[in-house]
Amino acid sequence: MGQRTGESPISWLMQAALARARLISLAAGFTDNPSLPVAETRAALNHILRSPKTGRPALQYGSTAGDPELRRLTAEHLMKLDWGGTPCRRPKNQGRRHAVPPKIYSPERLLITSGSQQLLYMTAEALCDEDDIVLVEDPTYFVYLSILQSCGLRARGIRLERNGLDLMHLEKVLQSLKRSGDLRRVKLFYLVSYFQNPTGVTTSFEKKRGLLKLLRKFERAAGHPIYLLEDAAYRELRFETVAAVYDRRSSDGMTNIRRSPTAATSYGEKSALAVPGAAERVIYTGTFTKLFATGARVGYGILPEPLFTAVKRIKGNHDFGTANLLQQLFVRVLASGTYKKQVARLQKRYAHKARVMKEALETHFPPSVEWWEPAGGLYFWARLPKNISTGVKSKVFQTALKNDVLYVPGELCYADDPSRAKPGNEMRISFGSASENDIREGIKRLGKVLKVFAGRES
Amino acid sequence: MGQRTGESPISWLMQAALARARLISLAAGFTDNPSLPVAETRAALNHILRSPKTGRPALQYGSTAGDPELRRLTAEHLMKLDWGGTPCRRPKNQGRRHAVPPKIYSPERLLITSGSQQLLYMTAEALCDEDDIVLVEDPTYFVYLSILQSCGLRARGIRLERNGLDLMHLEKVLQSLKRSGDLRRVKLFYLVSYFQNPTGVTTSFEKKRGLLKLLRKFERAAGHPIYLLEDAAYRELRFETVAAVYDRRSSDGMTNIRRSPTAATSYGEKSALAVPGAAERVIYTGTFTKLFATGARVGYGILPEPLFTAVKRIKGNHDFGTANLLQQLFVRVLASGTYKKQVARLQKRYAHKARVMKEALETHFPPSVEWWEPAGGLYFWARLPKNISTGVKSKVFQTALKNDVLYVPGELCYADDPSRAKPGNEMRISFGSASENDIREGIKRLGKVLKVFAGRES
Repeated sequence: MGQRTGESPISWLMQAALARARLISLAAGFTDNPSLPVAETRAALNHILRSPKTGRPALQYGSTAGDPELRRLTAEHLMKLDWGGTPCRRPKNQGRRHAVPPKIYSPERLLITSGSQQLLYMTAEALCDEDDIVLVEDPTYFVYLSILQSCGLRARGIRLERNGLDLMHLEKVLQSLKRSGDLRRVKLFYLVSYFQNPTGVTTSFEKKRGLLKLLRKFERAAGHPIYLLEDAAYRELRFETVAAVYDRRSSDGMTNIRRSPTAATSYGEKSALAVPGAAERVIYTGTFTKLFATGARVGYGILPEPLFTAVKRIKGNHDFGTANLLQQLFVRVLASGTYKKQVARLQKRYAHKARVMKEALETHFPPSVEWWEPAGGLYFWARLPKNISTGVKSKVFQTALKNDVLYVPGELCYADDPSRAKPGNEMRISFGSASENDIREGIKRLGKVLKVFAGRES
Repeated sequence: MGQRTGESPISWLMQAALARARLISLAAGFTDNPSLPVAETRAALNHILRSPKTGRPALQYGSTAGDPELRRLTAEHLMKLDWGGTPCRRPKNQGRRHAVPPKIYSPERLLITSGSQQLLYMTAEALCDEDDIVLVEDPTYFVYLSILQSCGLRARGIRLERNGLDLMHLEKVLQSLKRSGDLRRVKLFYLVSYFQNPTGVTTSFEKKRGLLKLLRKFERAAGHPIYLLEDAAYRELRFETVAAVYDRRSSDGMTNIRRSPTAATSYGEKSALAVPGAAERVIYTGTFTKLFATGARVGYGILPEPLFTAVKRIKGNHDFGTANLLQQLFVRVLASGTYKKQVARLQKRYAHKARVMKEALETHFPPSVEWWEPAGGLYFWARLPKNISTGVKSKVFQTALKNDVLYVPGELCYADDPSRAKPGNEMRISFGSASENDIREGIKRLGKVLKVFAGRES
């Protein structure tokens, strides 16, 4: 089946970046290099490997599902993200009253993976048969589209707006799939819920609840469960805690975090795990990789039974379990508080870099180009006038490359969906790995190109 | 598709082992705990993380195919294993004269993976469509059978004898597949070539050459290439260098390494990579994990183009690339000579443990039970009289478990192959993780059980 696996656009972009010495890449999703916690990682590893007794377990095989202590700490961590550390309390401002099912945050349903990417792959393998349909945001994470293509699956895009998923459009699509008899092929909705890749958009808890309700409604016609796969990879990369200056701007719709008293915890929107009934329908995936060190690839997923068992078995076939040494590293940095400190440092760092990019965009981009400012994550999303293409073969992209600046063409983030034309006039711009100077210079270069091709439209 | 992924027998065995405190597991393929290089790993990681400049690259994303320096060192390492460090020399004692194609040991075709297991999985994904046939040794590595089942593939077993693969049987099977029209479904031969799991058998270079020739012969009728996937996971776990005392025994057929002057290097049989034409047909996979630290999962594969490209893309979808921190660890231990020293230490250690097990077998097993002594690897293979079952539900297995000793039932290592009955009277016994005392005590307990059930046959 892999023969149909196409060249990944991201690896092509990475090649292009390497080939030009002066090039500034605003394309890569790499993380900020100077923030990488070298001394902290060294300290943690020295602690683990300080004696044969403590070190040997880290150098031995572990179990397929993951280290029990890491699973426990991760479940606790997720519970804190959703409920601020108070399990089972009755949520006051989340609509209906219900007790939280604590079992959903159980280590027993938590699987440690090689980055959250591996969980995305394995759930597609576990749930789908060839020619099945996966619903995705329109646009969505392009590597996920590559997974679907490689597995012989079809994607249908659900409109994503500045304030999150368009539930009306979802209902229309589900109805049309029901009419055409294709609903039986729908197994899964894939949602990048926080500071989405590529748009930076966050879908609110209320919308997640509405989304799950809609999926349930169509299950009878589908003849099987339709799962929600919530990819929360960017969840903890939020700027709010340090970006008080931004709060005044939140009313202009550019940031998507709700700052009303209903926002449950300091981490903003709750995950779909907190929706009643989630235990049977929500697959939640996250990662420690992006928050701490991308070179130590450890992610995780919470899955409903019996899906947990199926995915664990697939994991056994892939690799028996994620490298124990890396798992022990995260046990140590979570338990010691190092992880928390590093996340706070990164939030501040990325908030600053986003501010730098925003100022550069305000200065250099022509007014005909609309862009969305994120409240977290690594990406700005920009939209050119409709008739101006940003694609790999476009004049805009080629001229940008000639001027040594790279972005991700928006079209790569849209599924091949016959029900709509693929928008070709957008771009993802990342402030993740570029230095402040490179962000300024890169946006300046890109702005110059855009003024030539899109400026005349303003 | 994963819904059809069955419970892995190994995870069941591991569960069983955990449940009984006194239990001695001769089942697990875990490696020797006291030999794990804790101080060496700590030193290497401290070297890598000694400064931000050296540490950051290890904590950042790498590329999908793997770290360039690790790929270079690994290719060089394989070249040394096959040619003793002298590239391109004309091999004198390997039959036909030919220059070695150096490109086959090229970093460009070498992919770093999360253990060699991941490469096994990805090649199945890349090469096979549902219902395809993979030829395997009979018996073979049982997790590989689980991969095939999970991918909806069929396995056909080729007889394995004490001196390696039975090529006559292979030809018969290929002919019968041709007659039945099933040859078009055959894409791959999976061979565990050194100190095989589960039997300890090594297939000679001459046989590998014969095997490749046979596969070529049937390609026209198949309508496509039939690849040889050589799994050399145990290759470096050989006892020869330290087991001079054993050499006298090699003529009795119990050890399978050829010790004639034609054995090319100190590492014994060459791999299939050294067969002329291998560049187009051989997929070679190995691992650093078993030799150094199973908790730091790094393996590799050498693949023919265009398979290399297909598998690299699949790897991108699985996880973008193996954790860079682990890759840097192996760059360091390979370049510093630590790896080489550790392998020498392990060879000595396992040779000793194998000797301990052998002596225990000689003392405690009834003469009706035949067993094969390995010249490397982690396993003895034992065969009971034909009518005595060793399977999970058998009296032998259940009584052994009651007496707190665990082995791997041989039947788990046989493919579901309608063309022959599955032998049910064998067992895999591992000296990998058990201590010397546990090996002695475990074999004593097992011998006691066998005397009850198999003793009367002698």
